Amino acid sequence: MKTDKIADLVSGTLQGDRDVEINHGSDIAAASADSLAFTTTTDNVVTAAGCVLAIEGANVSAAAVIFVKDPRLAFAIACEVLHPAKTREPEIHPTAIISRSAIIGERVYVGALVTIGDGSSIGDGCQIRSGAHIGDNVKIGARCTLDPGVFVEDNCTIGNDVILHSGVVIGTDGFGFARDRDRYVKFPQIGTVVIEDNVEIGANSCVDRGALGETRIGEGTKIDNLVQIAHNVTIGKHCVIAAQTGISGSTVIEDNCVIGGQVGMGDHARVQSGAVIGSQAGVLPGKIVRPGVWWGTPVQPLDEYKRQNAHVKSLGRMKDELKSLRSRIDKIERNEE
Amino acid sequence: MKTDKIADLVSGTLQGDRDVEINHGSDIAAASADSLAFTTTTDNVVTAAGCVLAIEGANVSAAAVIFVKDPRLAFAIACEVLHPAKTREPEIHPTAIISRSAIIGERVYVGALVTIGDGSSIGDGCQIRSGAHIGDNVKIGARCTLDPGVFVEDNCTIGNDVILHSGVVIGTDGFGFARDRDRYVKFPQIGTVVIEDNVEIGANSCVDRGALGETRIGEGTKIDNLVQIAHNVTIGKHCVIAAQTGISGSTVIEDNCVIGGQVGMGDHARVQSGAVIGSQAGVLPGKIVRPGVWWGTPVQPLDEYKRQNAHVKSLGRMKDELKSLRSRIDKIERNEE
Amino acid sequence: MKTDKIADLVSGTLQGDRDVEINHGSDIAAASADSLAFTTTTDNVVTAAGCVLAIEGANVSAAAVIFVKDPRLAFAIACEVLHPAKTREPEIHPTAIISRSAIIGERVYVGALVTIGDGSSIGDGCQIRSGAHIGDNVKIGARCTLDPGVFVEDNCTIGNDVILHSGVVIGTDGFGFARDRDRYVKFPQIGTVVIEDNVEIGANSCVDRGALGETRIGEGTKIDNLVQIAHNVTIGKHCVIAAQTGISGSTVIEDNCVIGGQVGMGDHARVQSGAVIGSQAGVLPGKIVRPGVWWGTPVQPLDEYKRQNAHVKSLGRMKDELKSLRSRIDKIERNEE
Repeated sequence: MKTDKIADLVSGTLQGDRDVEINHGSDIAAASADSLAFTTTTDNVVTAAGCVLAIEGANVSAAAVIFVKDPRLAFAIACEVLHPAKTREPEIHPTAIISRSAIIGERVYVGALVTIGDGSSIGDGCQIRSGAHIGDNVKIGARCTLDPGVFVEDNCTIGNDVILHSGVVIGTDGFGFARDRDRYVKFPQIGTVVIEDNVEIGANSCVDRGALGETRIGEGTKIDNLVQIAHNVTIGKHCVIAAQTGISGSTVIEDNCVIGGQVGMGDHARVQSGAVIGSQAGVLPGKIVRPGVWWGTPVQPLDEYKRQNAHVKSLGRMKDELKSLRSRIDKIERNEE
Repeated sequence: MKTDKIADLVSGTLQGDRDVEINHGSDIAAASADSLAFTTTTDNVVTAAGCVLAIEGANVSAAAVIFVKDPRLAFAIACEVLHPAKTREPEIHPTAIISRSAIIGERVYVGALVTIGDGSSIGDGCQIRSGAHIGDNVKIGARCTLDPGVFVEDNCTIGNDVILHSGVVIGTDGFGFARDRDRYVKFPQIGTVVIEDNVEIGANSCVDRGALGETRIGEGTKIDNLVQIAHNVTIGKHCVIAAQTGISGSTVIEDNCVIGGQVGMGDHARVQSGAVIGSQAGVLPGKIVRPGVWWGTPVQPLDEYKRQNAHVKSLGRMKDELKSLRSRIDKIERNEE
Repeated sequence: MKTDKIADLVSGTLQGDRDVEINHGSDIAAASADSLAFTTTTDNVVTAAGCVLAIEGANVSAAAVIFVKDPRLAFAIACEVLHPAKTREPEIHPTAIISRSAIIGERVYVGALVTIGDGSSIGDGCQIRSGAHIGDNVKIGARCTLDPGVFVEDNCTIGNDVILHSGVVIGTDGFGFARDRDRYVKFPQIGTVVIEDNVEIGANSCVDRGALGETRIGEGTKIDNLVQIAHNVTIGKHCVIAAQTGISGSTVIEDNCVIGGQVGMGDHARVQSGAVIGSQAGVLPGKIVRPGVWWGTPVQPLDEYKRQNAHVKSLGRMKDELKSLRSRIDKIERNEE
């Protein structure tokens, strides 16, 4: 891709050579003459990159510089073209075991040792990689990628352009039991999972099926590795959830929320649209988390968390002060006698 | 199932039509004429459900109402009959790879691409689903279900009616090393795992084998997704452990404990029978957790935790008070001069 | 192995019978006449073990006692010989699907239903167990073990003597996105993973590939189950990381660090060589953790953490004291009037 095409693609202002051939994106420190790189500061930058995306006012010495508002975003957009996701040629591997009642779309890749159950359908352009398992009556949209070891349980629905990384488990039973004197009886886990378009779920994450209703992950939401999504959770559109976070049953996360890593949420909580929750935070069952930045266990607004943390840090001084006041009062009382 | 049969099954008192044909359990808000639903309040309820399980005194308008002590439990019991776990017809799939020395029981389903190692035995009525892997000398009891991607390592023992969800790993090496100047030497991990009857383990959870002895999970215990059970842990009967909790080596959890999600337990701790530990709590190594409700890191009784939390919340006021006392003392001292 | 050979192997001083035949390591409480056991105390010990490793001064009644500085380490070293890792005979299982362009070393075991992609190489003596999946252009050194369900993504490099337990995922995309008004654009995840010699990674752990550069795990480092290593993380040599810990992007852990379980680290942090971080701790993004023992969220030196914890525990008393001072001042002021 030539530099002028990249400038067009990212709606930037090109300065320097319009004709540099760019073959890949690179870290600015490891770039070469055919690299696209980016910088988000106005510091002086010297780089071997053939083309650099930078903010207006940046002082970059490179063959070509493209000025944009958000260089990291522009870099991501350009790299979608420079580094398209690897696409395996359409093929049904002879070792794949596909039910006769399954429907496979056009230009689909089904790798070795894949299983696809009765009544399931795989949309056009999907990449079902080696060792993925798909149950019965599963609907998968177009252009999805399922990595090795993914399992999608019966009756789940997956939209278009969804990426499920290795080891993701969709639609296993939620964790619900009723205590009967001396044993637990399984509460029925007969609902389903719906994953909307453009969702990406990281390795070894789990999304449980609804107990009676559905578990839903909204369009464009991105979920990291080792995340737990319990039964009947509803996650809105365009949320980001970092690694090892766990969300308990029936909790709702509205659109455009950002959830850090290792966050724990109790059941029946609601995170309102636009809320940001810091890593390792804990949300109590039933809690409503309003828009804003939240931190700690139990979660509180970041400002309050910081203030409280500062108070705790000053406890030693408070104790000293208490001691000093006490001795001053002792002295006053002695004088009064 | 007719309503009068359901009433019998759950030992409830039927009011209304004894003859409604019920085909499935539903959420009360999404129910239809052939649905069983339940409500746990005495609020007025209007529902399309053909039959509702409710507590004595509930005011429910439905074709049939069955009064019971614990409607959620009764619903679970009825749904065991209405929605039995899916059972695949007995079959050994031709792509399954089963050692000649393995013993397969009666009416067993072995799915595609399963592997079963030397000397292992699979009890009657088991469902070993596609892509599960069973090592050598593994003993699996009757009526167990192993989902796709489950792995059971050599020499482990699994009881009857056990459910292992997708991605569960049983019997891999525990995490034990001895430091030798500039490197770690692996401490032997040559013990085993015993999982007793009626245990259910959630997706992508791990149970390590004992270092020298065994790791044991007691009868009827239910474990959620992404849980870590380290070597030589002993878990009693009828415990519940929520998602993403981790239990370190040699810790003992006695019978009938309830452990929240994302709890961390150090090694050699003991949780006594009947203890309840809140989510995200931390149990220090060697700690004994007595019966009762525990919270926080390090865990403390819930009452103490709440009191302490309230104290911390009041730190701002305490500081103000300190300041005010100081200025009053200043004034008194000035007057005395 | 005779007791005199064990004494040589662990550089210990043998007392008693030089000729006892030892066949396995055991817990000292469950030992038999052909067992090696160990004790780390000087308490009186009576055991059925044929040979006991003990510290100088220990009072052990057994057929043979070997005195060493570190009995647990000596036990581990002896068990490396007594209990070598199970080695399957070299074989390429007929159901393994291996690219014609892949290179398989000498004396390699490739189990059933394994897939190995184009241009990948497997070093001498590797054990690639049933159902492991290896992508394209993966380099695996000598004597590695990949358990069932392991997945190594394209272009990753794994050293010698590496153990990857069941469900480990190496080299999936890191979690990086750029926000573009109303959606997230995937930041390129086109780097790689390098795992050096003698690394062991526990079941269901994930190591993401670098975004542009590499993610690296240093020689001899041991990682427990369900751990998350994000893109561009660098972990030094001979570190230990316990279960369910998560390390965010670009964070550096230097050599010889010990990280507890359920620790969370923000991005771009640096843990300096020799640091020890307690379980459930939280390291803020960009934080530099110096050598020493650290605890809590956000991490602080253990001494400070303990002091602060003690302060918090004394808040009730502080409140009482404040109240008492106030009433004394009230009285003084009344007297002054």
